[in-house]
Amino acid sequence: MTKNPMSADTKKIVSGEDYINSLRNRDLNIYLFGEQIKEVVDHPMIRPSINAVAETYDLAIREPELASVISPFTGKRISRFLHVVMSAHDMVLQNKMQRKLGQNTGTCFQRCVGMDAFNSLYSVTFEMDEANNTTYHSRLKSFLKTMHEFNFVVGGAMTDVKGDRSLAPHQQEDPDMFVHIAKRTKEGVYISGAKAHQTGCINSHYMLVMPTMRLGEADKDYAIVGAVPVEAKGITYIYGRQSCDTRSMEGGSIDTGNNTYGGQEAMVIFDNVFIPNEWIFMDGDYEFASMLVERFTTYHRRSYVCKSGVGDVLIGAAANIAEMNGVEKASHIKDKLVQMTHLNETIYATGIAASYQGHSTKSGCYLCDDMLANVCKHHVTKMPYEIGRLAQDLGGGLVATMPSEKDLNHPEIGVLVKKYLKGKAEFTTVERVRMLRLIENMTLGRNAVGYLTESMHGAGSPQAQRIQIGRAMQLEYKKRLAKVLAGIQDADDAVEELSGYFKRVFAL
Amino acid sequence: MTKNPMSADTKKIVSGEDYINSLRNRDLNIYLFGEQIKEVVDHPMIRPSINAVAETYDLAIREPELASVISPFTGKRISRFLHVVMSAHDMVLQNKMQRKLGQNTGTCFQRCVGMDAFNSLYSVTFEMDEANNTTYHSRLKSFLKTMHEFNFVVGGAMTDVKGDRSLAPHQQEDPDMFVHIAKRTKEGVYISGAKAHQTGCINSHYMLVMPTMRLGEADKDYAIVGAVPVEAKGITYIYGRQSCDTRSMEGGSIDTGNNTYGGQEAMVIFDNVFIPNEWIFMDGDYEFASMLVERFTTYHRRSYVCKSGVGDVLIGAAANIAEMNGVEKASHIKDKLVQMTHLNETIYATGIAASYQGHSTKSGCYLCDDMLANVCKHHVTKMPYEIGRLAQDLGGGLVATMPSEKDLNHPEIGVLVKKYLKGKAEFTTVERVRMLRLIENMTLGRNAVGYLTESMHGAGSPQAQRIQIGRAMQLEYKKRLAKVLAGIQDADDAVEELSGYFKRVFAL
Amino acid sequence: MTKNPMSADTKKIVSGEDYINSLRNRDLNIYLFGEQIKEVVDHPMIRPSINAVAETYDLAIREPELASVISPFTGKRISRFLHVVMSAHDMVLQNKMQRKLGQNTGTCFQRCVGMDAFNSLYSVTFEMDEANNTTYHSRLKSFLKTMHEFNFVVGGAMTDVKGDRSLAPHQQEDPDMFVHIAKRTKEGVYISGAKAHQTGCINSHYMLVMPTMRLGEADKDYAIVGAVPVEAKGITYIYGRQSCDTRSMEGGSIDTGNNTYGGQEAMVIFDNVFIPNEWIFMDGDYEFASMLVERFTTYHRRSYVCKSGVGDVLIGAAANIAEMNGVEKASHIKDKLVQMTHLNETIYATGIAASYQGHSTKSGCYLCDDMLANVCKHHVTKMPYEIGRLAQDLGGGLVATMPSEKDLNHPEIGVLVKKYLKGKAEFTTVERVRMLRLIENMTLGRNAVGYLTESMHGAGSPQAQRIQIGRAMQLEYKKRLAKVLAGIQDADDAVEELSGYFKRVFAL
Amino acid sequence: MTKNPMSADTKKIVSGEDYINSLRNRDLNIYLFGEQIKEVVDHPMIRPSINAVAETYDLAIREPELASVISPFTGKRISRFLHVVMSAHDMVLQNKMQRKLGQNTGTCFQRCVGMDAFNSLYSVTFEMDEANNTTYHSRLKSFLKTMHEFNFVVGGAMTDVKGDRSLAPHQQEDPDMFVHIAKRTKEGVYISGAKAHQTGCINSHYMLVMPTMRLGEADKDYAIVGAVPVEAKGITYIYGRQSCDTRSMEGGSIDTGNNTYGGQEAMVIFDNVFIPNEWIFMDGDYEFASMLVERFTTYHRRSYVCKSGVGDVLIGAAANIAEMNGVEKASHIKDKLVQMTHLNETIYATGIAASYQGHSTKSGCYLCDDMLANVCKHHVTKMPYEIGRLAQDLGGGLVATMPSEKDLNHPEIGVLVKKYLKGKAEFTTVERVRMLRLIENMTLGRNAVGYLTESMHGAGSPQAQRIQIGRAMQLEYKKRLAKVLAGIQDADDAVEELSGYFKRVFAL
Repeated sequence: MTKNPMSADTKKIVSGEDYINSLRNRDLNIYLFGEQIKEVVDHPMIRPSINAVAETYDLAIREPELASVISPFTGKRISRFLHVVMSAHDMVLQNKMQRKLGQNTGTCFQRCVGMDAFNSLYSVTFEMDEANNTTYHSRLKSFLKTMHEFNFVVGGAMTDVKGDRSLAPHQQEDPDMFVHIAKRTKEGVYISGAKAHQTGCINSHYMLVMPTMRLGEADKDYAIVGAVPVEAKGITYIYGRQSCDTRSMEGGSIDTGNNTYGGQEAMVIFDNVFIPNEWIFMDGDYEFASMLVERFTTYHRRSYVCKSGVGDVLIGAAANIAEMNGVEKASHIKDKLVQMTHLNETIYATGIAASYQGHSTKSGCYLCDDMLANVCKHHVTKMPYEIGRLAQDLGGGLVATMPSEKDLNHPEIGVLVKKYLKGKAEFTTVERVRMLRLIENMTLGRNAVGYLTESMHGAGSPQAQRIQIGRAMQLEYKKRLAKVLAGIQDADDAVEELSGYFKRVFAL
Repeated sequence: MTKNPMSADTKKIVSGEDYINSLRNRDLNIYLFGEQIKEVVDHPMIRPSINAVAETYDLAIREPELASVISPFTGKRISRFLHVVMSAHDMVLQNKMQRKLGQNTGTCFQRCVGMDAFNSLYSVTFEMDEANNTTYHSRLKSFLKTMHEFNFVVGGAMTDVKGDRSLAPHQQEDPDMFVHIAKRTKEGVYISGAKAHQTGCINSHYMLVMPTMRLGEADKDYAIVGAVPVEAKGITYIYGRQSCDTRSMEGGSIDTGNNTYGGQEAMVIFDNVFIPNEWIFMDGDYEFASMLVERFTTYHRRSYVCKSGVGDVLIGAAANIAEMNGVEKASHIKDKLVQMTHLNETIYATGIAASYQGHSTKSGCYLCDDMLANVCKHHVTKMPYEIGRLAQDLGGGLVATMPSEKDLNHPEIGVLVKKYLKGKAEFTTVERVRMLRLIENMTLGRNAVGYLTESMHGAGSPQAQRIQIGRAMQLEYKKRLAKVLAGIQDADDAVEELSGYFKRVFAL
Repeated sequence: MTKNPMSADTKKIVSGEDYINSLRNRDLNIYLFGEQIKEVVDHPMIRPSINAVAETYDLAIREPELASVISPFTGKRISRFLHVVMSAHDMVLQNKMQRKLGQNTGTCFQRCVGMDAFNSLYSVTFEMDEANNTTYHSRLKSFLKTMHEFNFVVGGAMTDVKGDRSLAPHQQEDPDMFVHIAKRTKEGVYISGAKAHQTGCINSHYMLVMPTMRLGEADKDYAIVGAVPVEAKGITYIYGRQSCDTRSMEGGSIDTGNNTYGGQEAMVIFDNVFIPNEWIFMDGDYEFASMLVERFTTYHRRSYVCKSGVGDVLIGAAANIAEMNGVEKASHIKDKLVQMTHLNETIYATGIAASYQGHSTKSGCYLCDDMLANVCKHHVTKMPYEIGRLAQDLGGGLVATMPSEKDLNHPEIGVLVKKYLKGKAEFTTVERVRMLRLIENMTLGRNAVGYLTESMHGAGSPQAQRIQIGRAMQLEYKKRLAKVLAGIQDADDAVEELSGYFKRVFAL
Repeated sequence: MTKNPMSADTKKIVSGEDYINSLRNRDLNIYLFGEQIKEVVDHPMIRPSINAVAETYDLAIREPELASVISPFTGKRISRFLHVVMSAHDMVLQNKMQRKLGQNTGTCFQRCVGMDAFNSLYSVTFEMDEANNTTYHSRLKSFLKTMHEFNFVVGGAMTDVKGDRSLAPHQQEDPDMFVHIAKRTKEGVYISGAKAHQTGCINSHYMLVMPTMRLGEADKDYAIVGAVPVEAKGITYIYGRQSCDTRSMEGGSIDTGNNTYGGQEAMVIFDNVFIPNEWIFMDGDYEFASMLVERFTTYHRRSYVCKSGVGDVLIGAAANIAEMNGVEKASHIKDKLVQMTHLNETIYATGIAASYQGHSTKSGCYLCDDMLANVCKHHVTKMPYEIGRLAQDLGGGLVATMPSEKDLNHPEIGVLVKKYLKGKAEFTTVERVRMLRLIENMTLGRNAVGYLTESMHGAGSPQAQRIQIGRAMQLEYKKRLAKVLAGIQDADDAVEELSGYFKRVFAL
């Protein structure tokens, strides 16, 4: 039986502990290693991803200005992750919260997808209603109000499995390659299909299901956006495995590297999952699919500022291990830490610049700068890899050749390991090993998935950003600049209204 | 006889033409190619640098919101280059104006040094007065008021020639290796020494002379800051030569590449130059020299956002030449333009992020973020070189092998040149040649000096930024983050007040 | 009881199978996960590293010209890994064999350390004998003859654990931080200490123990080189764990990525291990320690050509997955494969250039070019990371979010996984998953240890190569070239005998 | 009247002086700055390019083994630049000579085009004759014999001006956009058209005219290869201008940076230029055009090893200026010199690897490895730019802001310049200025054209190398490697004959 996330006894979540308890006793159909998981909260491999989300609540208690807002719907304090941004400053604060959570967890804390999803929907539903006389926008506000009341976690589900990528959704041999409406009733719609590598779905309360790309008229049934509770009937989750994932199940606390926090991705399969009318925010309006996707990616590419927080941890780890190895004063070591910082701050700077340069949409909701958001994310597809490489450089070969925790703690062998892996006198071997395992975790292990691979592919692979940069780069304007200076064209002839990116560049 | 820049007939400068006229008939001691220059305004090699400054006035007429402000001292509209920034927004608007001027001139427009100099002095004099009970701050405001009245160009003079770099100023065998007080009278001081590669000095009205680095007590006589008119008695200017400089003197308009605009650097030699007491803003307060230098470089490193405007021109030139060559549709061409844009926007984004993240000083004047300003400038020491390389890639070999303008215009030979250098039908050969010459100008020629070499060394060479990044990177904070996640330290033990850079990162 | 590797029933090893059998029933003291391993050959986590060495034998059968030679000692065909190189061609053939084995195994096949060790010893012992009238060279030849007779695997043990890196061996508080002579008898010496991250030790028959760095007179007892059987009394091995190592123990064949081959590193602890006089090749000759280390690293840095073979596999995997995803025709995909190839071939080219430019030592044994070997290895510390990053780019996010093999093979859930993870029609989902797991294996998993981290640190970390390049770059010669062209010095004055690197550059 | 380069009084050239004299009194139709040049040898702007070629002769006297060979045709010693390479060793020696000449001249010495042209023709004519029963090969040998007799300089002319690049030669509106046969007589053919940016044509004795790309049957008249004397009737040369070219005409010796040596490019226009039958080496054999072009570029891309010699000079210059500035001991300075060296040696290593891995053609003439030659040249399109950037970093801002030589030598002003631009005590200001001017020369000035722009575009622009790398990378072979290791395909099924690049990789 499905537990209703909004039953009579549901209370507003305040602390991380409240949140963890809210996830208990749900009737989810989750598979991992070919077995059904009874209670996700207690599964050692899943728990770290839940802890990461719990920290978003605890941070809101410790630093309410940073990580919470007063809900315009309820007048009560809620997580900033549930906030519709109404100013550039609001967007910058998202970034600052993201960096802090990256620092505190050293991993992906999984709440940005949902946040960026309803923010994009906020303006898109407004413009859909304006164009088509629909009522999606008020439905969305009603949905958000409910989320605010309970201070729930909202996830987003976007990336279809896609099948043959050269075919449109309606052309696929198997119609389920993209999530679509399989059935309609008076009360709502039933959707089928699957979303791949969904971040933070199982530990959310609701998911916003959205199309993954531009759609044509023949794809109408694929133009569906709606909210579903995570425990909705018909959903199967297959938990994605990660590098070194089973170390969590070995019983120790060292070899995991980061024993508390981790990310989570799963394949989410929808088999005739019901969405009631009031929680449908797009239905057949295929012509708005690309607007939704573009706004979402614009927000989301800038959300990768979080990686600068994770990078702070890795820079700190590299500095620690250099000190434990006794080489922290070498000029090349110092210089590599500077280089890591230079790269890491570039991610931060380009991300917040996109937020600061944001502009209002018709709905009043702010949207960040498209060009700079893409510039930020594009750096994220490279710089964490280089920061990781430098961390391995400073870490030394032991990062990948150390004996296991069980050897370290072995009554006899452990003595030898501790004797021989001792670095500088003021640190214990266990401290040194823990620091090396953290570097392993972030460059090869479980959190390398979030810090590297997800940095590459989340919010669109590198080429997706290059396409967007190409679209926004306004070559005609730049060509005219060059023609004037080369003496080919008069400056007067070159006068023109600025548009797009350069309009924002020169906005006062 | 020295022309007094503020004589009875001096009028407020409004247009570029006013400005150019204001530079006429001055009695300057300038050498170029071993000869004294009578009238700089009419010298074909010098004029382009004057034109670039003139454009700062004309832009203020065409786009007053972008390039001018209302003076708080006079209540009249003046150049934004004379403005003391009282908000982060003010600093961002400097950046936007800088990018626009880079776009309009394709070169260094030379006014940022002075702007960044009096902005740093504004807060430093305030804090000096507070500490030492001096009156520098009101003197500076009085100076600025005068500058605002006439809407003058203020240059800055900072970089001493330095002699043996392993010795402090007072240790040098020749005391003139750093500018210093050579004599004192009741009315003021007399300074001697020389400043190397001073940008935009000859075409300024006043120069702010400042020390170049941290000073000790024994360097007291070197701790002198003051304003001098450009035509002050005792100053000798030796004009620096640039790559391809003499093409301006060949009489044509094509081979120069950018026939209108160029930069200017000169060596400025002070031989007992008088500064009256009211225009002295530091005298012996050696302990404030490093604060002044650091604030100046913080502003100035972020001012290199101008290069993104110059980069826009070069990207435009590359796009034009690709089209003229008929290859604009090739995927690798498009991709290289995207790459150039990605790099160019990174300069812009990191620069404005430094401005947006600025904070108030005690004086009320805003100061941009130190870390991000250094991150910006550090990219500027590399990215323009790569953008230039890609422009040469798209330009093709002709960039460096074309016949001269005189051959192109030759009655017989010119016919052959035009026939054989024809590209795509819709462009004339002259247009193609002009575009190639612009690329040459910006990657090898006169404006390569500003776009490349000055990008490297202006506001401090790469290592200077790395040192500042190293100072600001707050490793101890990051090390604690890693220790907590590695399980070495409790999160509770790690609680601490944020300071420095991270305080600003998490400022709300 | 120690099994004597050369007992009466010992036979010459020919095939991989012979080799694997030769490793059975040895009495080794090996720990892994806190437990003693009875039979390494059958341990699923260890076996892949044994298979990789076995392939060196099987290749010698399939391609004898590439992977074997005729022993000058026995006149019989033996592995090329046992060959003393007597020409530049011999060194190039090592590189070609290394690339092929990288291609065939996709991992580190672990035999280069030993090969490079006895090659360096060959010339160093020759020169030691010449200098000190010792007999090390003939002892070494005798040792090699024995190895040739049985066609054994010889490993090398060099990297001491080092303790406090700011102290010399004899200054360490704990004398065991570097392997040293603990006791002497008439028959030989007893050594104690430990070597960290030793590649391919447990699956060797003999190990050559060598000092790790330049030694001084006070370090005499650390100047010990000798051969010990792997099963010598007193040795304890602690197996190093690797990213995703336990997947080998899960029972499947998919999630391991590369189910057959892997690398191996262990900590080797010597507790009074005996070396008989006839197998001692340096004893107290501290002044030759640096020569030995330098020659070894020169050979070994160039041996990293193997990574170009591993890179071939990863490029192939990236090309396969692009095809399976249906995007192999996109221009950016093709371009990334070209970029991976460009980088990969740079490793190969710089490595073989070092071999081709080798020169004879006094012993007749050839030594490769020091500068170019360092240039090669220095690229290896970066390029595989970039190739790996690009492979992840082409692989897509699934590389790190796929369900486990057990889910894939699950009777019910497996059907869904297979349905939804289907790519292009002509490939099965299992094939696609296998290819993605191979990419994971090489970029995050078990063989990422060899392809990335070992590429960084094996044969010396990046700074070690920069130091060697700095030593060999002959700035004085280059400074003279510039002085002549700048007109500061006459060409005649500049005439000088070439030495070092440039002597080899201009060798005819 | 045309001077016959082989008139009765023609003597074999031995020394540089002989060579310079051989260029006097020729009746060439050369334009520069709209004027006809009477005597190229004495023109200050042209002379440096002649000096660079003269050094190829003088080197052959000083180091005959390196820079000369015994002609197989005449039995006499001739320049190595005239040698047909009959072994891999021969090709490596070309590279070594190229590096040495780069070191001695700091510029492009212009003889590689011709050398690479007749080497490609040697094998292509052999195979043409074999296919078509023609006699081109013996004609070519006869031509070479004549060249050997007089030890002449042979240039190559390949790059057509191309017009609209989307059209084939025969489709161009103006047939002259590609050099073609305009007329035929019994004695030979007459060609018309133009070749752009021809290196070292005016200072050659003969030019080999070749097609620039793959041709189709309709382009038959464009499939013409032949030798013409430089002073042939009907040729017009228009000298290309270079950055800072006119400094040579200012009368000094400092501001030129490298006062002795420079490169040369010109546009060569053919107006019915006669080629006698005996010196025609292809006529209408369009199907061999691409083979010729590919072999030429394979040789020529590897010939860019010369840039490592030029790089040696720039590294030396950077090291000198660091010392003159007194900062040579700073760790970041040393590290940048190491980085420059690492890049520079990569060019060298990849180039010689291509030569060492060469293979014989049917004609007996050796051809270098295609893949590695392209890898080498592709690095050359980037690394010199980075080396140049680092040289500017070490040089400091003065590289681009120094007063002119005339100011430096001025009786009054010069004293000030010398006083204020003094660096470390043991160097004079003039020495420091000379070194800075050399860096300017190589990074912005005249020799930047050769070191940078020509490195980019000579022998094909970057994309041309990527296309060749893409063709040679043998993805199918690599895909099979990955399939075997991923468990998709049996190793046995994967057995196949190696071909192309990998055949050479594994050649023994």
